[in-house]
Amino acid sequence: MRAVDLIRKKRDSGEHSREEIAYLITGYTKGDIPDYQMAAWLMAAWIRGLSRAETAALTETMLHSGEVVDHSDLPMKKVDKHSTGGIGDKTSLILAPIVAAGGLAVPMISGRGLGHTGGTLDKLESIPGFNTALSLDDFHRVLKECGMSLIGQTSEIAPADKKIYALRDVTSTVESIGLICASIMSKKLAEGIDALVLDVKTGSGAFMAKEEDAIRLAEIMVDTARRMGKKCVALLTDMDQPLGRMAGHSNEVLESLDVLKGAGPADLRDLSIELSAWMFFLGERTKSVEEGRSLAQEMIASGKALERFRQCIRLQGGDARIVDDPSLMPSAKYHAEINSSKSGYITAMHCRDFGIALALLEGGRSKKEDRIDPAVGLEFHRCIGDRVTPGEKLVTIQYNSEARLAEARQLLENGFVIGDQKPPLPPLVRQVIGR
Amino acid sequence: MRAVDLIRKKRDSGEHSREEIAYLITGYTKGDIPDYQMAAWLMAAWIRGLSRAETAALTETMLHSGEVVDHSDLPMKKVDKHSTGGIGDKTSLILAPIVAAGGLAVPMISGRGLGHTGGTLDKLESIPGFNTALSLDDFHRVLKECGMSLIGQTSEIAPADKKIYALRDVTSTVESIGLICASIMSKKLAEGIDALVLDVKTGSGAFMAKEEDAIRLAEIMVDTARRMGKKCVALLTDMDQPLGRMAGHSNEVLESLDVLKGAGPADLRDLSIELSAWMFFLGERTKSVEEGRSLAQEMIASGKALERFRQCIRLQGGDARIVDDPSLMPSAKYHAEINSSKSGYITAMHCRDFGIALALLEGGRSKKEDRIDPAVGLEFHRCIGDRVTPGEKLVTIQYNSEARLAEARQLLENGFVIGDQKPPLPPLVRQVIGR
Repeated sequence: MRAVDLIRKKRDSGEHSREEIAYLITGYTKGDIPDYQMAAWLMAAWIRGLSRAETAALTETMLHSGEVVDHSDLPMKKVDKHSTGGIGDKTSLILAPIVAAGGLAVPMISGRGLGHTGGTLDKLESIPGFNTALSLDDFHRVLKECGMSLIGQTSEIAPADKKIYALRDVTSTVESIGLICASIMSKKLAEGIDALVLDVKTGSGAFMAKEEDAIRLAEIMVDTARRMGKKCVALLTDMDQPLGRMAGHSNEVLESLDVLKGAGPADLRDLSIELSAWMFFLGERTKSVEEGRSLAQEMIASGKALERFRQCIRLQGGDARIVDDPSLMPSAKYHAEINSSKSGYITAMHCRDFGIALALLEGGRSKKEDRIDPAVGLEFHRCIGDRVTPGEKLVTIQYNSEARLAEARQLLENGFVIGDQKPPLPPLVRQVIGR
Repeated sequence: MRAVDLIRKKRDSGEHSREEIAYLITGYTKGDIPDYQMAAWLMAAWIRGLSRAETAALTETMLHSGEVVDHSDLPMKKVDKHSTGGIGDKTSLILAPIVAAGGLAVPMISGRGLGHTGGTLDKLESIPGFNTALSLDDFHRVLKECGMSLIGQTSEIAPADKKIYALRDVTSTVESIGLICASIMSKKLAEGIDALVLDVKTGSGAFMAKEEDAIRLAEIMVDTARRMGKKCVALLTDMDQPLGRMAGHSNEVLESLDVLKGAGPADLRDLSIELSAWMFFLGERTKSVEEGRSLAQEMIASGKALERFRQCIRLQGGDARIVDDPSLMPSAKYHAEINSSKSGYITAMHCRDFGIALALLEGGRSKKEDRIDPAVGLEFHRCIGDRVTPGEKLVTIQYNSEARLAEARQLLENGFVIGDQKPPLPPLVRQVIGR
């Protein structure tokens, strides 16, 4: 086999065998195939596409380029959730303790935020002392002790993905359904899980703004997981507006605690329960999703989920007193308001711009190297369908530096579309793929 | 400007501006843009294609990446011919002396053979002592003295093409009309010519076997030359069978001398005269192509063309006695015959296989590093449309090593298609593009 022939095959729209994919990916990871050949192949794959079988083979090879965590000494099923990301999406912090409290194990390896969306790791690190850089052994130990553990990707996990992702980033080959799927799934399957619930976002604040693209990605991810012997469904959910009221880091942790305490905004609570319900069902903890919903609600109402979160914070080195005392979390020095200039109904939001505004205030990253200020955040006071009058508060900006405040304000002010007619309200869960 | 954005633009079927092409090519040649980004761009360009304007910009940038030879102190027009290559294609050796004798200058920078086609440089080097590695100064001096000079590409000529071609070779991005055009034309235009006649081959022995591809390539090359202010036409010519009777190196030089002496096979003589006629016309030496034909014939009949060739050989260090004494040229130790096994008419030839057979006998290169035996060759005794009987001689193999003789024989034996009906004879010049 020669790389140059495989590049030609994909260039000419051919379909690779599993062996050919393995040859390319393993060869590249070992350094036998140079960057320039992989770059040519990636571009051919981006343009010609990858079949489901090719995507599964790619995922499998990338998965096995590194360590697959073994939690088989734990008797319960291991389940996880992956979201394609959005503004204010903090469900991981809520559903992990719910599902752990309900009797399953949630081994969660998460990423950092980049661009307009936040990352679970960054949010957790706003908790004083919380350590996301556990070794895989410590990851297992925490999981065993409290049923959940949340860490960052280590160098042992899917090194092929790491090398290929860096190359995709500089060769404009990122946004390919097949390549995205393999990148996500190779890392998730390395967690040693039995089942996976996918939260695929669509709408103005989503990575996949178009619903048809989101559906295609969801379908191929579900297919890939099943080819690898894992139970999987994907919920296609709304990201036309922020999820919950808070976007940022410290403020999202506090809002998650609100939900775990039985309060918090309805959309965030409902989606967290829905995702937990599917995790319970796929993890064979309940006989139906409906039963899963009840179990999730019970875990909140009983305080058991909150207790799990407190335990996990403590086991990962964090200051668990934040659960009861929000003042121990970082908070911003200054507040500023964005007010409505018109009267009418909020008909749409440029949700992606809200994420960019947050990054401008150092509450997110434009580049991988950017530092994050965990205290910075946005609080949204109104949702799509709400009636507003001139001067009415739309957003509170929580900030520490004025450096790019004006730019951020501009994005936020222009981010609300106000019209005369009350718009139809978007359903939170648009459909379940792979049900 | 950033390379990653330009890659994305071509990936998404965008058309580059002249400045964007210049940024990419210049950046790559200087080493500011890495191989992997150029590889991704080349694959995107291969799949999405390059417009005529992009191809011209690419040609221009590659041309100006190196030196453009200046022959402006010579009063006559400078003209050249480029062929896309075929079996037995030796017209350069004939038309250069014809056109030089007729009063124009022919500054010819040629390539070596690779794959199934031969190269002008390799043929010339079969003349004992002939030096094709002249400096650009010596190139100019020889041109000034005898109106023609034939050398190989130097490192000063189009270095961008050299670097890009090497990358295309290992990333399966060679066969792209736009990239091929820019590669050929950037080198040809660096010769400092006023006009160029293209001989674009089509048929079983051509690089572009399909006529439609050959026409597309011809059209874009003519367009590119004209955008660069050069006169240009392309003759679409037949390569369904070898041109002339000889294929090899030493034997092709001798056959060329035959034509210059007023003998030689009709197809080779006719095409050489036709190409010379167009060179005379585009170089404004004659008022019509017809008049150019007469002038070309006169240059042969008068012996003036032969004299020019003799002079050029001498000026480039070769043994000019070969013009009168063929025995001074390398010749093969052994001969073998391929005979017809059937009776009937030759209806087709697998002409490409003849070139491969020649390479197996060391009369060509499969890889760039392969050495060539200039004495090895093939002599074809029959053409398409000839009637043959069993046992009749089709080919004489001139060889020095038996190592791969059996393989070569096999290709030659299977290379003749013999049928019952006399086939229509293919016209030598199928059409003139850009007339």
